[in-house]
Amino acid sequence: MPQISQRAVQMPASPIRKLVPLADEAKRRGVKIYHLNIGQPDLPTPQEGLDALKNIDRKVLEYSPSDGYLSLREKLVGYYDQYQIKLTPNDIIITTGGSEAVLFAFMSCLNPGDEIIVPEPAYANYMAFAISAGAVIRTVSTSIEEGFALPKVEQFEALINERTRGILICNPNNPTGYLYTRKEMNRIRDIVKKYDLFLFSDEVYREFIYTGSPYISACHLEGIEQNVVLIDSVSKRYSECGIRIGALITKNRHLRDAVMKFCQARLSPPLIGQVVAEASLDAPRDYMIRTYEEYIERRNCLIDGLNKIPGVYSPIPMGAFYTVARLPIDDSDKFCAWCLSEFEYEGETVMMAPASGFYTDPNKGRDEVRIAYVLKKADLQRALFILGKALEAYPGRVDK
Amino acid sequence: MPQISQRAVQMPASPIRKLVPLADEAKRRGVKIYHLNIGQPDLPTPQEGLDALKNIDRKVLEYSPSDGYLSLREKLVGYYDQYQIKLTPNDIIITTGGSEAVLFAFMSCLNPGDEIIVPEPAYANYMAFAISAGAVIRTVSTSIEEGFALPKVEQFEALINERTRGILICNPNNPTGYLYTRKEMNRIRDIVKKYDLFLFSDEVYREFIYTGSPYISACHLEGIEQNVVLIDSVSKRYSECGIRIGALITKNRHLRDAVMKFCQARLSPPLIGQVVAEASLDAPRDYMIRTYEEYIERRNCLIDGLNKIPGVYSPIPMGAFYTVARLPIDDSDKFCAWCLSEFEYEGETVMMAPASGFYTDPNKGRDEVRIAYVLKKADLQRALFILGKALEAYPGRVDK
Repeated sequence: MPQISQRAVQMPASPIRKLVPLADEAKRRGVKIYHLNIGQPDLPTPQEGLDALKNIDRKVLEYSPSDGYLSLREKLVGYYDQYQIKLTPNDIIITTGGSEAVLFAFMSCLNPGDEIIVPEPAYANYMAFAISAGAVIRTVSTSIEEGFALPKVEQFEALINERTRGILICNPNNPTGYLYTRKEMNRIRDIVKKYDLFLFSDEVYREFIYTGSPYISACHLEGIEQNVVLIDSVSKRYSECGIRIGALITKNRHLRDAVMKFCQARLSPPLIGQVVAEASLDAPRDYMIRTYEEYIERRNCLIDGLNKIPGVYSPIPMGAFYTVARLPIDDSDKFCAWCLSEFEYEGETVMMAPASGFYTDPNKGRDEVRIAYVLKKADLQRALFILGKALEAYPGRVDK
Repeated sequence: MPQISQRAVQMPASPIRKLVPLADEAKRRGVKIYHLNIGQPDLPTPQEGLDALKNIDRKVLEYSPSDGYLSLREKLVGYYDQYQIKLTPNDIIITTGGSEAVLFAFMSCLNPGDEIIVPEPAYANYMAFAISAGAVIRTVSTSIEEGFALPKVEQFEALINERTRGILICNPNNPTGYLYTRKEMNRIRDIVKKYDLFLFSDEVYREFIYTGSPYISACHLEGIEQNVVLIDSVSKRYSECGIRIGALITKNRHLRDAVMKFCQARLSPPLIGQVVAEASLDAPRDYMIRTYEEYIERRNCLIDGLNKIPGVYSPIPMGAFYTVARLPIDDSDKFCAWCLSEFEYEGETVMMAPASGFYTDPNKGRDEVRIAYVLKKADLQRALFILGKALEAYPGRVDK
């Protein structure tokens, strides 16, 4: 039997994925699971998007252009303009989800062995895409004690060497909910400029900023326009993760030409998803406000509830719909598995993402979990209650 | 400005892509273009698929499982059973088009520097996916004179070395329309077995075999079940290229686990496309027969017409909906560009794919073009007439 590639061996298995068979088994036992583990919002997709589906009157579901429909890209120009991001349709390449935008950005910018610097904890799949491109992720650590604020410039500079090709940020951040300040963004800009690096900026959660603090996009930073690669997706803002429509945006024409070669090889992004995404951009202000207010309420409910559980600490996330919380436990991988396989309270339990999957250092995040607030308030409250009961019963409890 | 990756530099630009600006310019001049260059069928998508779109009553367009919906995979088991390909749903991983299946197969099986052997001319994007994985394509040549039949085993064996990891075939073939015989498939099986290689087999055109010859799938070959990776797609058979639904199929569980890591990193294949694909599997026999008969008629029309043009030769393609034809010209890249930029006949011209893009050797295919028969018969006849006029007028005409 021929062997799989080394790259495939190195690819991390999703930390949540390991829990899936345990969750399936729990469901078979009749246990109800509160899913705090995933970033799949339960909120409705905009009616405009759903209607567009029903109104498709095509006879042939044909290829779309490799860079996506011009009509969608034109409409996105107006969308970004609201955020003072000034683009032309040519700056925007439609991708199959934000995932493909990350993959094509890495494929186009990074040679095997090249390094990028990523603040961690970080979205686990960046690592998978880096491995796909043969690139190496170096991390600067942020900590729950400092609310996951960006470390000092010196920590970035200590990692920079002749193989360093870029910095990647996710802002607002998955998994921490942190929002970079203007000062922090300027700090990143200065490093990017000084060392002529790419700045990959994943900003798919820009709609979800709860503190009144300004949203500073990488595209707002002056003097590094040719270095910035914006990663985006309609998945989270319109609750339509399944349509797989994202975008790679850059003012760097040379890079766009490179990315287009990868786009042409995969022929086209999903046709129907583009139709839905384009219509969703017409979602009324009211839809966005309702969604926003719902998340505000859930965030308050979750963070208050978490910090009331003895031994639990969560900073207040400024954006996105996740928080990383510290629990009084020995090992979050063990605890999350235990919640599914050995624990239940009145026939219910909780599923969370162990934070270990968001760190490259296996010693980090051992007592942290990522919790997504994508459930309605009553369910969140019940899930918090169950989590409290689980922590009381867990044999690996550690009080510090 | 930071530099793009070497991989991006190496990525081939699509040979057709270079012609697109010329075609756009011709359209601006009011010239009508017959598109013989693309594999986008003009035939309708099955009504079952289109109806499924209108009947989607979901409120949230959410992520689907990373390996695709079980209901779709179960239904595909029945589909393959018609072709005596015996599968379980677990053998099937749903991908974002056949393109992603090729990419993930290469990513999972090939290390940087590993080699695969591909008979050429070959679908140009295999090269792009090989470059993405850092792998090297070695080619065995087939020729128009021999109707693109598979070369002798010795030619394969001459290329095999310690870096050889697999053989890739496309059967029925894009671009040549060739169908491998049982004898040829057995020959491939023997090499695969002898050297324990992967056999990547792209069989997306299995519905389109016109000669009464048997369809021998790689999955029919005994003794290499753990080596075979079937690449598939619903795009061509249901005329729904835009929904981006394909599949990677293998009995090799170890390989499936590896592929799943790449699938999890990109989260999920398109949700709506899966709904359409699943419904399209219910297309009545009548739909498939009508489609098949339409292609038979077009094939006859095209091949007869081509061979009647002085100096033109096309073998009779046994399957798919392409042919590679030899023209009395100096250089097909120049000729195809000239047809768009300098020629018209009564306000019309033709667009074809220069065959150079399907060969790795830049000296091969210089007088060949790929022609897709995805236009209705009347248009094909007119296109052939225009092509004849173009060849009469072309300054680079070469009569051998």
